Amino acid sequence: MRASHLEDFYQFLRFPSVSTDDSYSARLTECGHWLVEKLTRIGLTAKLHPTPGHPVVWAHNEQKPGRRTVLIYGHYDVQPPDPLELWDSPPFEPVLHDGYVFARGATDNKGQILSHILGIEEQMEANGDLPVNVHLVVEGEEEIGSGNLGNFLAQNRDALKCDVVMVSDTGMIARGVPTISYGLRGVAALELKVTGPKMDLHSGIYGGAVMNPLAAMSRLLASLHDTNGRITIAGFYDDVLPLQEWEREMWSKLPVNPEAELLKETGVPELFGERGFSTLERIWARPTAEINGMGGGYQGQGTKTVIGREAMAKLTFRLVPNQDGEKITALAEEHLRKNCPPSIRLEMTPGHSGPWYLTDPYSQFGCAAQRAMRDAFARDAVLIREGGSIPIVSQFRDILGVETLLLGLALPDCRAHSPNENFPLENLDAGIRINKAVLKELAA
Amino acid sequence: MRASHLEDFYQFLRFPSVSTDDSYSARLTECGHWLVEKLTRIGLTAKLHPTPGHPVVWAHNEQKPGRRTVLIYGHYDVQPPDPLELWDSPPFEPVLHDGYVFARGATDNKGQILSHILGIEEQMEANGDLPVNVHLVVEGEEEIGSGNLGNFLAQNRDALKCDVVMVSDTGMIARGVPTISYGLRGVAALELKVTGPKMDLHSGIYGGAVMNPLAAMSRLLASLHDTNGRITIAGFYDDVLPLQEWEREMWSKLPVNPEAELLKETGVPELFGERGFSTLERIWARPTAEINGMGGGYQGQGTKTVIGREAMAKLTFRLVPNQDGEKITALAEEHLRKNCPPSIRLEMTPGHSGPWYLTDPYSQFGCAAQRAMRDAFARDAVLIREGGSIPIVSQFRDILGVETLLLGLALPDCRAHSPNENFPLENLDAGIRINKAVLKELAA
Repeated sequence: MRASHLEDFYQFLRFPSVSTDDSYSARLTECGHWLVEKLTRIGLTAKLHPTPGHPVVWAHNEQKPGRRTVLIYGHYDVQPPDPLELWDSPPFEPVLHDGYVFARGATDNKGQILSHILGIEEQMEANGDLPVNVHLVVEGEEEIGSGNLGNFLAQNRDALKCDVVMVSDTGMIARGVPTISYGLRGVAALELKVTGPKMDLHSGIYGGAVMNPLAAMSRLLASLHDTNGRITIAGFYDDVLPLQEWEREMWSKLPVNPEAELLKETGVPELFGERGFSTLERIWARPTAEINGMGGGYQGQGTKTVIGREAMAKLTFRLVPNQDGEKITALAEEHLRKNCPPSIRLEMTPGHSGPWYLTDPYSQFGCAAQRAMRDAFARDAVLIREGGSIPIVSQFRDILGVETLLLGLALPDCRAHSPNENFPLENLDAGIRINKAVLKELAA
Repeated sequence: MRASHLEDFYQFLRFPSVSTDDSYSARLTECGHWLVEKLTRIGLTAKLHPTPGHPVVWAHNEQKPGRRTVLIYGHYDVQPPDPLELWDSPPFEPVLHDGYVFARGATDNKGQILSHILGIEEQMEANGDLPVNVHLVVEGEEEIGSGNLGNFLAQNRDALKCDVVMVSDTGMIARGVPTISYGLRGVAALELKVTGPKMDLHSGIYGGAVMNPLAAMSRLLASLHDTNGRITIAGFYDDVLPLQEWEREMWSKLPVNPEAELLKETGVPELFGERGFSTLERIWARPTAEINGMGGGYQGQGTKTVIGREAMAKLTFRLVPNQDGEKITALAEEHLRKNCPPSIRLEMTPGHSGPWYLTDPYSQFGCAAQRAMRDAFARDAVLIREGGSIPIVSQFRDILGVETLLLGLALPDCRAHSPNENFPLENLDAGIRINKAVLKELAA
């Protein structure tokens, strides 16, 4: 690893590019400028593209006809560092311990996108060009929902025309194991509010004669699952694409023990989920209905003998191929309306949603990615899905009409979004190798 | 009504004797002193009895042998006036509108206890003594649980020896209808906490593989009732004393329409309660399990895709004769433990409890009270129970060994504990008449 690579990494990490907090806006722009300068210096044509929010960094080499074109996507914005007191060192002053760089954004996503930039740098130095046409798009709003990226893609659809997108913003199942994610779950949110009496009531004077909104909410929420962890909403599973045999087989042979790891990470005494599916299947390929929040009545110290006038709950459904967010939300609303106790007014407000993603890891580009990963790691890549959602990959498909290769470099203990986020320098190197190998495979 | 009675009422109401807020301590003591002076002026022996909390006012006439002794109980402390902005006039500046005095404490309990003091005043003026021995005990901690009254009673058990207690701190079923409450529900509190993972989890990364503590809490809370409003805790109803036929018959003939009134007061579209019982039976003679508060996960604006590490709930059970608070709490804990989903840690903390009360309205003193009420109102008294709890009446029974006559003067729309609390002057007069009539009946 060149000393200049580490210096670049440190400089990149020192920008507190926290997109969720408007007071950091100027620092995000500074970070974007730094990227433009870096990309210009290594021989790309780069500029900062303004948006109504934080600017997009867009760079490319000379687009030569007859070559394949790859769009490499990443983001320079980071999560807030809070809670600060849980960090062992200041979040925007990177430090190196035992080969790991600790700083906010080290894994998510600065280390991963920088490794691609450094891979390009080394190739430009060696050959004066890259083997394919490359667009590099690094946005500043991923942590706040990529609200302006869709417009950017649509406005520059022709200029950004490409064959495939490459993203390193997902996980490796273990250190040293090359990992391709070919599927993601979607998400659909639904907020519930139940209302009973017009005011909080004294539970002595009225208790027994009116339906308690908190009891009504409990009953509604409890109606979502049976005791085997299966969701009881009629039709909920109708469109679920069954897991393919090769997926089930590959996942059962992964060189990890997901049960042991999950027990350790979560601290629960035992795992629990839908009967008939393995832990990885439950997370990667089965939909969920989660209560993210609920509340009502008196939640302070001591006792208050009150029948609260209302209660709320926040639900999100994780969706899998081929579920449709709007259809699932409608089915859930119908289920809840049916199960609503008497005399209770139920209001339901659908929230944000994002589609699931599934691509074929054995497509032409999928196979190229598998070969490149084998090159880079000297080991066969594993093919997984992920339980989370990355809405932007659906935009690449919908707006640019191309698939996305998710070649992740995040380790399970990278602490993305948490204190002491870190990234191993060996993965900075691996990212450089991945970049070179993928561009070479795509050129072939 | 004498002008001096109204002036006394106003002076009494002007003390902001809010016992729940320590910053008012000095004002409570001032209020107690004012009572001692008033009671001394009308010819009683009165003093302020210190406690570790707010002082007790204790007054008596000359205790002559061979006469019956009655203890009249009330309280000079009041609920906080919040929310202040909902008052039409300042809560501690009494105003008279259409025969009603508006001020915090007007009904609860200053107007009611003052009417007894004024009744005593008129009798002392007319006869130089009362027809029976009287102890007047007016405490300053009723709104915070009467924590020091039990000790006061125990320490002065011999001096306070009496035949019966009289309290005006309950309701009239309607204006002008003399109402004797011969039963109260008890209460037992139980706080629940469920814990799952050691931290909040990302619902994409972990959703589907761990039991969600909020879902677990919903299931626990929903398990408390069936859809007919009946409590499903095994053994919960075993000790419930069935309603007597005379009670059911009297309640069905009360000159009120409780359904219409409850619908108006609460604003619910329909009432709901245990199948097989009337509304009044549900409130006055059937036990309940109410969720007073619950919460967990993210309750703020928008969406947070989190599996919360814990959830809480606060329950209170309203108890009826002959249920035992400890036994009910134990049965509930057993039920909840049995219904707790896998991998969830359930902690249960019993809270405050108070016993139910039931006395015989046809006992010697009960009949005397009925005659006195008929005298005072020129109309037969109705006999009811109440849904709330007044723990102090059990202390009178347990410590002094006597029953309590609950001769209420609170109207249904008196707004006790709420903004614009009020008390009609006609009930101040009625209280004076009740005091005279009861003392006369007890002397007979």
